[in-house]
Amino acid sequence: MLKPLYDHVVLEPEKEENKTKSGIILTAKDNERPQMAKVTAVGPGKEGNALSVKVGDKVVFKAYATTEITFDDKKYLILKESDILAIVEGA
Amino acid sequence: MLKPLYDHVVLEPEKEENKTKSGIILTAKDNERPQMAKVTAVGPGKEGNALSVKVGDKVVFKAYATTEITFDDKKYLILKESDILAIVEGA
Amino acid sequence: MLKPLYDHVVLEPEKEENKTKSGIILTAKDNERPQMAKVTAVGPGKEGNALSVKVGDKVVFKAYATTEITFDDKKYLILKESDILAIVEGA
Amino acid sequence: MLKPLYDHVVLEPEKEENKTKSGIILTAKDNERPQMAKVTAVGPGKEGNALSVKVGDKVVFKAYATTEITFDDKKYLILKESDILAIVEGA
Amino acid sequence: MLKPLYDHVVLEPEKEENKTKSGIILTAKDNERPQMAKVTAVGPGKEGNALSVKVGDKVVFKAYATTEITFDDKKYLILKESDILAIVEGA
Amino acid sequence: MLKPLYDHVVLEPEKEENKTKSGIILTAKDNERPQMAKVTAVGPGKEGNALSVKVGDKVVFKAYATTEITFDDKKYLILKESDILAIVEGA
Amino acid sequence: MLKPLYDHVVLEPEKEENKTKSGIILTAKDNERPQMAKVTAVGPGKEGNALSVKVGDKVVFKAYATTEITFDDKKYLILKESDILAIVEGA
Repeated sequence: MLKPLYDHVVLEPEKEENKTKSGIILTAKDNERPQMAKVTAVGPGKEGNALSVKVGDKVVFKAYATTEITFDDKKYLILKESDILAIVEGA
Repeated sequence: MLKPLYDHVVLEPEKEENKTKSGIILTAKDNERPQMAKVTAVGPGKEGNALSVKVGDKVVFKAYATTEITFDDKKYLILKESDILAIVEGA
Repeated sequence: MLKPLYDHVVLEPEKEENKTKSGIILTAKDNERPQMAKVTAVGPGKEGNALSVKVGDKVVFKAYATTEITFDDKKYLILKESDILAIVEGA
Repeated sequence: MLKPLYDHVVLEPEKEENKTKSGIILTAKDNERPQMAKVTAVGPGKEGNALSVKVGDKVVFKAYATTEITFDDKKYLILKESDILAIVEGA
Repeated sequence: MLKPLYDHVVLEPEKEENKTKSGIILTAKDNERPQMAKVTAVGPGKEGNALSVKVGDKVVFKAYATTEITFDDKKYLILKESDILAIVEGA
Repeated sequence: MLKPLYDHVVLEPEKEENKTKSGIILTAKDNERPQMAKVTAVGPGKEGNALSVKVGDKVVFKAYATTEITFDDKKYLILKESDILAIVEGA
Repeated sequence: MLKPLYDHVVLEPEKEENKTKSGIILTAKDNERPQMAKVTAVGPGKEGNALSVKVGDKVVFKAYATTEITFDDKKYLILKESDILAIVEGA
């Protein structure tokens, strides 16, 4: 299990990465990598401020700001919450 | 639905992107991409400061500062409010 | 109408751009673009500080710091007040 | 023995670097170097804030942010705690 | 007349630019442009701090930090006071 | 004698630079220069904070952050304390 | 005479630049220019903090951070005090 430090967030990319259930296609102009993923762990926050995202949220984020790791055969992305742009509701 | 975090703002480019109803042509010297769009969602603000723009505002902004995503077959731009330059009234 | 946000300022370049009424020629060494323009709108300021320039001021500024937009067939420049160097009086 | 200063942390890469006991493979997209290591020493903290990681923690981190040294024939990595992304539990 | 904003200073390069009355030669290694000029206008200061230089001071400054403008057929340099290195006395 | 200012520290590289008494080999991946040296002088600190290292400490540091000078036929390195990573004990 | 502003310091390179009286050779790895000079003027300080160096001090400094000017046929270097590394005593 990954326990992020401070304001870091762990994301798990969607299985069918570029498509949401409702058929939404998410693409990023800069590198064509999908930018939507599900939050799987959030850090405790920084300087007493808790984070705004929670486990289970679907989020869009700046793809270039992530560190990609493979853990237990799954890919995860870790980034700071400030690089998350928005929560996707109804996805 | 996209719910922006903190001081992020979601914009929807105009259908006829380079022309407003009154025939205004908006061009950006640096990359020739249109720079006017309509605000469709605003974040809650940052450090207790609410944002100045509101849903429905037409705004001009720094094109290079945006992240472009496709969601439900529509294009959206997400940026920080500090990269919005002005609200266009009467457009 | 352009309503600048925070510390942004909207400028309208002079019609005969490189010459003022008194025949002043303003040139910028770095890119040879004129650097004088008239203030047409000022933002409300930032963190409670009102801006120093006012509508109608002729100003000189750092040309590379501006965003150029075309609006109602006129060219405008938008920049932060901190990129305005001086007010030109008697121009 | 290495006694890190302020917010520095000393890490010892895993013997079988790319595999954890449970067969986890950790790879970093940017330079393909493993990104998991064990904390062997932590600094006293900075400006009165103790660090969040402790000796024995398995951590993932930004590989490019480390200084690699060889000491007593073992390789160590030194980095600031802010470049550690998450603690790996159950690894 | 140029009225500098905040901590900006307007300089007028010396007529015989590289020589002072006493025959001082001022050269700048980085771009061989003269670095001495006379202060012709000072801004009101920034955040309540008045500037240290006054009109008439001869100053040496970082040449690369200036914006050069031509106004009423004279060349002027505008820079922030923090890019002025020293006042030249007895020049 | 070198008296460092503020938070600067003067280091003297070990005679047999890459080996400590116990045969420790210290190498730096980035430029292959040894990274261990002995503190010979410490500055008074900055903003009322005394430094953490003291004369005689063996330290590892970021090699690229040093200024190398030759003084009385000996080589010294000067750097800010924040570029020292750890104290080496038992070396 | 050069009167430095704020935290600037004026230095006069030694006549026999690379050698001190005691035969000390000072060289800088990065650009091979001598790095020792004598303080000839100090600014009043910045934000109420007086400077630590005084006129007559021999100092070593970061060569790349200086502005070189020729004044009354002598070469001087001007830099911020924060780019002075140490005072050389007994030189």
